[in-house]
Amino acid sequence: MEERTVKFVLKEVDLPTAWYNIVPDLPVQLDPPLHPKTLEPLKPEDLEPLFPMSLIEQEVTTAPTVDIPGPVLDVYRMWRPTPLYRARRLEAALGTPARIYYKYEGVSPVGSHKPNTAIAQAYYNKIAGVRRLSTETGAGQWGSALSMACAQFGLDCLVYMVRVSYDLKPHRRSLMRLYGADVIPSPSPTTEAGRAVLEKDPSSPGSLGIAISEAVEVAVKDHGTKYSLGSVLNHVLLHQTVIGLEAMKQMEMAGDTPDYVVACCGGGSNFGGLAFPFLRDILTSRSQDGPEGGLSERPHGLPETNRAGNPESHQVRRHPTIIAVEPAACPTLTKGKYAYDFGDTVGLAPVIKMHTLGHRFIPASIHAGGLRYHGVSPLISILLEHGLIEARAVKQLGVFEAATLFAKTEGILPAPESAHAIRAAADLALEAKEKGEERCILFGLSGHGHFDLASYELYQSSRLQDYAHPEAELERALSELPKVQGQMS
Amino acid sequence: MEERTVKFVLKEVDLPTAWYNIVPDLPVQLDPPLHPKTLEPLKPEDLEPLFPMSLIEQEVTTAPTVDIPGPVLDVYRMWRPTPLYRARRLEAALGTPARIYYKYEGVSPVGSHKPNTAIAQAYYNKIAGVRRLSTETGAGQWGSALSMACAQFGLDCLVYMVRVSYDLKPHRRSLMRLYGADVIPSPSPTTEAGRAVLEKDPSSPGSLGIAISEAVEVAVKDHGTKYSLGSVLNHVLLHQTVIGLEAMKQMEMAGDTPDYVVACCGGGSNFGGLAFPFLRDILTSRSQDGPEGGLSERPHGLPETNRAGNPESHQVRRHPTIIAVEPAACPTLTKGKYAYDFGDTVGLAPVIKMHTLGHRFIPASIHAGGLRYHGVSPLISILLEHGLIEARAVKQLGVFEAATLFAKTEGILPAPESAHAIRAAADLALEAKEKGEERCILFGLSGHGHFDLASYELYQSSRLQDYAHPEAELERALSELPKVQGQMS
Repeated sequence: MEERTVKFVLKEVDLPTAWYNIVPDLPVQLDPPLHPKTLEPLKPEDLEPLFPMSLIEQEVTTAPTVDIPGPVLDVYRMWRPTPLYRARRLEAALGTPARIYYKYEGVSPVGSHKPNTAIAQAYYNKIAGVRRLSTETGAGQWGSALSMACAQFGLDCLVYMVRVSYDLKPHRRSLMRLYGADVIPSPSPTTEAGRAVLEKDPSSPGSLGIAISEAVEVAVKDHGTKYSLGSVLNHVLLHQTVIGLEAMKQMEMAGDTPDYVVACCGGGSNFGGLAFPFLRDILTSRSQDGPEGGLSERPHGLPETNRAGNPESHQVRRHPTIIAVEPAACPTLTKGKYAYDFGDTVGLAPVIKMHTLGHRFIPASIHAGGLRYHGVSPLISILLEHGLIEARAVKQLGVFEAATLFAKTEGILPAPESAHAIRAAADLALEAKEKGEERCILFGLSGHGHFDLASYELYQSSRLQDYAHPEAELERALSELPKVQGQMS
Repeated sequence: MEERTVKFVLKEVDLPTAWYNIVPDLPVQLDPPLHPKTLEPLKPEDLEPLFPMSLIEQEVTTAPTVDIPGPVLDVYRMWRPTPLYRARRLEAALGTPARIYYKYEGVSPVGSHKPNTAIAQAYYNKIAGVRRLSTETGAGQWGSALSMACAQFGLDCLVYMVRVSYDLKPHRRSLMRLYGADVIPSPSPTTEAGRAVLEKDPSSPGSLGIAISEAVEVAVKDHGTKYSLGSVLNHVLLHQTVIGLEAMKQMEMAGDTPDYVVACCGGGSNFGGLAFPFLRDILTSRSQDGPEGGLSERPHGLPETNRAGNPESHQVRRHPTIIAVEPAACPTLTKGKYAYDFGDTVGLAPVIKMHTLGHRFIPASIHAGGLRYHGVSPLISILLEHGLIEARAVKQLGVFEAATLFAKTEGILPAPESAHAIRAAADLALEAKEKGEERCILFGLSGHGHFDLASYELYQSSRLQDYAHPEAELERALSELPKVQGQMS
């Protein structure tokens, strides 16, 4: 019979008990976040209205690891450890000599990786005596994860959902309400930020940036409410490292070592979660070369041609190439600027140094809502800036084509976000075929697509298209960065 | 902190390697299926146009077990063994002394238990040289499982989908097409059966019975096409016994023994899959009492009051009470007649002895499409008839209420079908609370509800209602049973 997908399952005892903190291993220190009003470096206490002190500490800690609390592990265990698969049927369909593996996070109750941090954030807020969490959501992946987490820890949950999604994508809205959350379409009359937008445009479709402004405002004004963010921040990516920590053990079980680690990247929580543990080796072996050891030099420095076929090259400790995949319609890493910018549209959220398309940039309506954000995690930006990771942008139709092939061969319907990684992994595998070269590719399958069938329906009926923003539009959005001292805009 | 859900995970080596066949353990022989035209007992060769010989043999075998072929196990391993959970948070919310466990099948790629037989059927057809499988589907659970299975084994797949679902529930239709299936709204002009219906009513919304007629007709007429059914038949329930076989091992891991085994029941594949392995002990201990050992006597014969608190009762080997849960709007087991009836509407499918509401019965449009079938598996009917299992009917609003509580406490959003079992399990747990009695309850959670959020949305906005068919309507449908010799209609 044909080749079959192979699953690698960890024992429960192999569930990681500490998250990996990449901060102390970075080649340089992160630029500090700035206060949105003063543009002066933020002090930890400036964040207190938004987050409990335990999470603020995680945001700035330089400890190499952070222990995962028992109650968080207890909830993780409902679906973790998650499986890792060897995609033998996809390999066969592509006719590639490459070995392809994927780590699957769609087995969580809400079908994505988001609960890895939602559960942790709900827990830390609960023990800090917080009554309610406020957050924003686009299509609803993050909102449903946080709603579920709040239900698990007996917290109230208030979700500002981008109005266009609220109206057109009612399913995840229903899911959040089932978990007990209050879901409000944004912009809303419940906040100053929302009212200001509605005054200018009463029929505003909303945006993630506006919804963030509303959720932040509620947390600032209401003593019992804190704010929760599903990506971008250091502590969020920290929590997601369970993905990569498990994947490393599973690759060991498989007796294989990835040459490429590939994940889709919006705000960066999925990418960071899978990639950071694989970067640890790269970063620590670099630092042994001394602090000046070639910041701009690629650490995965062996030439491609040395990688395959040559038995000697297998003696050398190889580092994987780490690739962040983003939509061509929201090319933050590939076309954005590395600069200080607001995290939200209105300018209430901290100003952070990151790759950004400008906080006023409105990405095209592609069907990977989770990847439509103007910025990206500062941690990922600094890694890209120092050549420690690569970034690729892929187009929508190619993404859906890869997703369809994946469903047929591997059986799992991927979320459109996750399918960006499939597209890039397939391209690497096809390149290997062309070069007649062995390769080991690991990618992150961050969620299933059971909520996204309306998008697949559009694809099947040829009603989707590729979209790239004109350069002039990108330039215009980038001209509106905040005037931070020393920053050229 | 609060109580936490506990997961029991089998090792991969504990994946069952043989299905359990309940047929040889039945108290009496099954009445033979009849030919739909002659109403004479069917010969195995009469089924050859529909099924490959290997599956016909499984339909009639009296072997105690049937080995699971390696290639089927290889695909099962993509998501099996599935988890079993102790619902500690649900218990706490109900304030019950009962211990509640659930076996979760929603981790399969299509989110339900259906692939357990779809994979097996696709495999046996593939090795028999079949080119294409035809089938019917209502809301699409079965159609998507078979489409996925056909993609895994390189078979074509033709799905007749009830038109009203095809038009109103496009999501699973898209999913089937993603897996490569041809999906045709039924009734269709592609078959005589479909044309006959359309002639009378060009805007017919269709029904599962009509769609079966169409799929069967194609298999009969096209040499390379065989037919595949997702429930009711002996070999289908056989394949599903992996669920109960795993659950028994997991209850052992938990160190507990169920007093109640509860599952929702439409055609019966989910119920049979979980319950049959637990019935084996009951049936074989009965047969040791001699063949006449009280066919109508309940085997779970210890009085309720002996079950808890009394240490002596724990010395006695207790048998669980097995409960099939159906919708009050389609009360096949609780209000149907045990009689010969057609499996489909038009009268092309075999005539089988079962509990039935009459093959012309059209159940109300409840939001558990998988439970809207006029009949039930003959295996389940005979067990009910001999008092070896019990049946309960539950109403829609209570089902959605239980589903919502389950999502909030256990985190998993259940399919509305599966939520029928939750409702019944919760009722048993509340009864235990009232009586101040310990109990161990195991129920089957056959699938997740990520495809069913439109139904939950209706529930949330109070647009769902309970429905029970008037007795006169039930009587009228039952007056149209086929005139089989010796059958009083």
